[in-house]
Amino acid sequence: MYRTDRCGDLRAGDEGRVVTLCGWVQRIRELGGMVFIDLRDRYGITQLVFSRDIDNELCDRAVELGREFVISVSGRVTLRSNRNSQMPTGDVEIVVSDLEILNRSETPPFTVEDDTDGGDDLRMRYRYLDLRRPSVMQKIMLRHKMAREVRNYMDSNDFIEVETPVLYKSTPEGARDYVVPSRIHKGEFYALPQSPQTLKQLLMVAGFDRYYQIVRCFRDEDLRADRQPEFTQIDCELSFVTRDEIFTVFEGLARHLFTTILGREIERPFRRMPYSEAVSRYGTDKPDLRFGMPITEITDLVKGIGFQVFDNAGYTGAIVAPLCGNYSRKQIDELTGWVRRPQIGASGLIYIKSGSDGSVKSPVGKYFNDESLLHIAAEAGATGDDLTLIVSGDRDSALRALGELRLEMGRRLGLRDSDSFAPLWVVDFPLLEWDGDDGRYYAMHHPFTTPLEEDRHLLSDNPGKVRANAYDLVINGVEIGGGSLRIYDQDLQRELFSALGYSREQAEREFGFLMNAFRYGAPPHGGIAFGFDRWTALMGGGESIRDFIAFPKNNSARDVMIDSPSPLSDDQLAELSLRLRD
Amino acid sequence: MYRTDRCGDLRAGDEGRVVTLCGWVQRIRELGGMVFIDLRDRYGITQLVFSRDIDNELCDRAVELGREFVISVSGRVTLRSNRNSQMPTGDVEIVVSDLEILNRSETPPFTVEDDTDGGDDLRMRYRYLDLRRPSVMQKIMLRHKMAREVRNYMDSNDFIEVETPVLYKSTPEGARDYVVPSRIHKGEFYALPQSPQTLKQLLMVAGFDRYYQIVRCFRDEDLRADRQPEFTQIDCELSFVTRDEIFTVFEGLARHLFTTILGREIERPFRRMPYSEAVSRYGTDKPDLRFGMPITEITDLVKGIGFQVFDNAGYTGAIVAPLCGNYSRKQIDELTGWVRRPQIGASGLIYIKSGSDGSVKSPVGKYFNDESLLHIAAEAGATGDDLTLIVSGDRDSALRALGELRLEMGRRLGLRDSDSFAPLWVVDFPLLEWDGDDGRYYAMHHPFTTPLEEDRHLLSDNPGKVRANAYDLVINGVEIGGGSLRIYDQDLQRELFSALGYSREQAEREFGFLMNAFRYGAPPHGGIAFGFDRWTALMGGGESIRDFIAFPKNNSARDVMIDSPSPLSDDQLAELSLRLRD
Repeated sequence: MYRTDRCGDLRAGDEGRVVTLCGWVQRIRELGGMVFIDLRDRYGITQLVFSRDIDNELCDRAVELGREFVISVSGRVTLRSNRNSQMPTGDVEIVVSDLEILNRSETPPFTVEDDTDGGDDLRMRYRYLDLRRPSVMQKIMLRHKMAREVRNYMDSNDFIEVETPVLYKSTPEGARDYVVPSRIHKGEFYALPQSPQTLKQLLMVAGFDRYYQIVRCFRDEDLRADRQPEFTQIDCELSFVTRDEIFTVFEGLARHLFTTILGREIERPFRRMPYSEAVSRYGTDKPDLRFGMPITEITDLVKGIGFQVFDNAGYTGAIVAPLCGNYSRKQIDELTGWVRRPQIGASGLIYIKSGSDGSVKSPVGKYFNDESLLHIAAEAGATGDDLTLIVSGDRDSALRALGELRLEMGRRLGLRDSDSFAPLWVVDFPLLEWDGDDGRYYAMHHPFTTPLEEDRHLLSDNPGKVRANAYDLVINGVEIGGGSLRIYDQDLQRELFSALGYSREQAEREFGFLMNAFRYGAPPHGGIAFGFDRWTALMGGGESIRDFIAFPKNNSARDVMIDSPSPLSDDQLAELSLRLRD
Repeated sequence: MYRTDRCGDLRAGDEGRVVTLCGWVQRIRELGGMVFIDLRDRYGITQLVFSRDIDNELCDRAVELGREFVISVSGRVTLRSNRNSQMPTGDVEIVVSDLEILNRSETPPFTVEDDTDGGDDLRMRYRYLDLRRPSVMQKIMLRHKMAREVRNYMDSNDFIEVETPVLYKSTPEGARDYVVPSRIHKGEFYALPQSPQTLKQLLMVAGFDRYYQIVRCFRDEDLRADRQPEFTQIDCELSFVTRDEIFTVFEGLARHLFTTILGREIERPFRRMPYSEAVSRYGTDKPDLRFGMPITEITDLVKGIGFQVFDNAGYTGAIVAPLCGNYSRKQIDELTGWVRRPQIGASGLIYIKSGSDGSVKSPVGKYFNDESLLHIAAEAGATGDDLTLIVSGDRDSALRALGELRLEMGRRLGLRDSDSFAPLWVVDFPLLEWDGDDGRYYAMHHPFTTPLEEDRHLLSDNPGKVRANAYDLVINGVEIGGGSLRIYDQDLQRELFSALGYSREQAEREFGFLMNAFRYGAPPHGGIAFGFDRWTALMGGGESIRDFIAFPKNNSARDVMIDSPSPLSDDQLAELSLRLRD
């Protein structure tokens, strides 16, 4: 037996016990004839004491230990004279009588402490040392706890976890697949699943009724910050349910997670907002509702006065930054620069400062008299000391810029508290979106999503106006998950394919195997998939999903620790009947 | 809301309630002015009744329903006059007042009942219909329950589930990898993990202390029956543990599973048997200990009497089939044919029949007198009416043939009861095995396995004799899992690599990234991995792991339902910088 207890276990009540602990040397301090060592394992840190009065030779050996040495010590649990209330084990220390070095360590390339001197790249290369840092290990343990509580909830709600294949098949109309050459079937390939969408629908056809899976998914996308080529989904599907029943089930999941992980109550039912309102009031389909500051359209209010910018714009909108009426010229200039950055893309920013005395100030004062300015600001929702910020342009870009500006002002004003949570269902997404380049509609969610019953009559004549039974769960401006009610009726499916410009043969070829299954009694069904990495990051108060993945890849999809991907030998390629192109 | 209750829910206590159920039409029977329908969902079957006296038109519609139609019905719960005690819902039926067809079904290609007329290939092609058969769905639900209980046990024993990458790197010395071309890093490939072996050891280096994962693994092996290209492992690793502590933890897991899944107690601690004994007494490294019938070596006993077969053989051994002394000539001939099959490979079979009167009969009677035969049979363990079966040959093949013969006799004599469980730790496996073709040793488990301390001195001079801290868990002759204590000491690692004939540079190149990690304080650690598909099949009393996988591949690694693998377009290949070889 290596140890009797672990480094996070001992308390004042253990006084007098002779124990054996194992762990890593975190720190060594010599202090007047005594040597103190912080011994660390996953469970905590315990202070070890060596005294020259008791055993000089043992003290010498203790001093010679290095950081991150793995040791085993035996000794008696003793109460500390100066207790440390910051540590759960802070009441005790071990007066060591035996010391064994289990393994040595070279000096680590960075300090293995929360406050480390290691840069991102170095820490990723030595991820196994990075993971030793308590704050990093905590994130992986939080992830485990999340998975456990997801399963507890789903299991107790009659969901069955079913494992679906990883060696799967290319799916049409999705993102780019990762593929796996078959050695046996020369020239043929498996594809890694972007999601088990089709398979979970087949499980509904099979009568599984309630399915879930915490499942790895793969997308070979062009790289953006905080995207991983492989990511984990909580994938769910239910039969014989309405949209509201789906909402109830997954509000229950969210409630369960917030309670068990964070010890917090969240209010139910969650707020719901149509997609159209989200876009027109928050400039995004995933509004952060921890704060207000909605967008007000003022196009008609400001048009026709002679100010070219407003007159020429298809859309003008405003948000009100509360109590920012005293912004300096420099602050406004900086904000103007901010909205002009290519990522935001506004051509400029116009403001109205409202004074507490009822006065107004604006650079467009020569076009608008005070009364007009007061009226505009009031329409936007401003009162004394507020700052009204106005952006013009074509509707989509102006709304997007205003949405970004709103988030930025929320951040600057401290309104986006990472400890506060505002969940929201965004509903009634458009069924289709027009692709100008291809000159055709694409399914916004996927081609098996049902239209709202009241919009179905528009499918043939005005498909762009049709709203879908599709929904996203958004928390604090982060899209946590999305789903829809699926089509299970063959007539409706044909109608939708025709709206998408598919011939019958094409639909057969690309979606045949699911449509085949639907010929044998498909139940009404719907579902949702949550981004597990993202939800975990949200619960952990983290910005980057990468921190919550034990062995993440970097922004060029490379694992720098194991050095992957890497070349194959020509023999391996030959066995797969492949050759590299020049 | 689609339904108030589910098809497995209603009991006598629900009498009088008006309910709505949804499900699939399993059977329709007309009987004197009444129509009876069995309505099925995942939760059970409920009988529906339509009466011509009450609603003739509704009866007409009921009769026109087809098998596997999806319907919704409302009606009153009524007690059945002839209760069916075979079904949980057998006390009640629904007198239907409303019927809605939610979806039609074409006639399924085979009957969706436990006793189906569908052949294997057809059922796999329509796996979503096959899964509707209650016995098949039960197996997938058993798998879910197994996973849940594995997690319950591991979680409550402080194990942390950590997800490791699927886009991983080729590992040396393993089976063949499935690979994934990188689009961004041209000419480079990821590999799908054969197991997270290296990563779990890194997690120990990182201090995770106790790790597990229910994880998909991949091996591109040449195909054998009941192998799947992707399979699921319960992968586990622990730090600061002895072998006995590992055994205790996982005997606890087995006990937990047997109790919660099958409601059965199994005895602990499990029996342990050295590899050498398993081979010499049972002719295999995974003995089925549900019955006795061990092998007895009788080489010296039968040598030198003048019978060529015995005289020329390096080894002669025997098993005793109890109470088979009355086997006919025909039965013995058939058995002889059986052991001569190429899969078994014995050159022949010699027997001694022991009569209840102390007589003996044997075809080698002209070489051995009765006294000798009696002595041989007694040495092998025979008493009156028993049949002693003798095989000669070189030691390895003769033992293997005797082991197979033992299993076959056990089967024929009904000694391999699928409802009885005999767990066994096979221990002290050889560390290395000699490969005659390559003229070198290979690690039997993997090159990070520790030798037994008492055998370490043999490493340089007699490496083939070194036993390892490697173990398998065997239940009923099935290898459920295997593991080892790992090397964490760099000196020992160098010794082992040298025994394997590795140069220092070669070891660096092939195992560098794990050896690097070991420079920074690796703890003593060890672990085990269980075949989750196989363990589930064992618990479900099934022979084939395929039955316990929702969407399995066939014996040529093809999914016939989704038709995968399949060709890629030339555009896709070009994007991956690949070309097919002719």
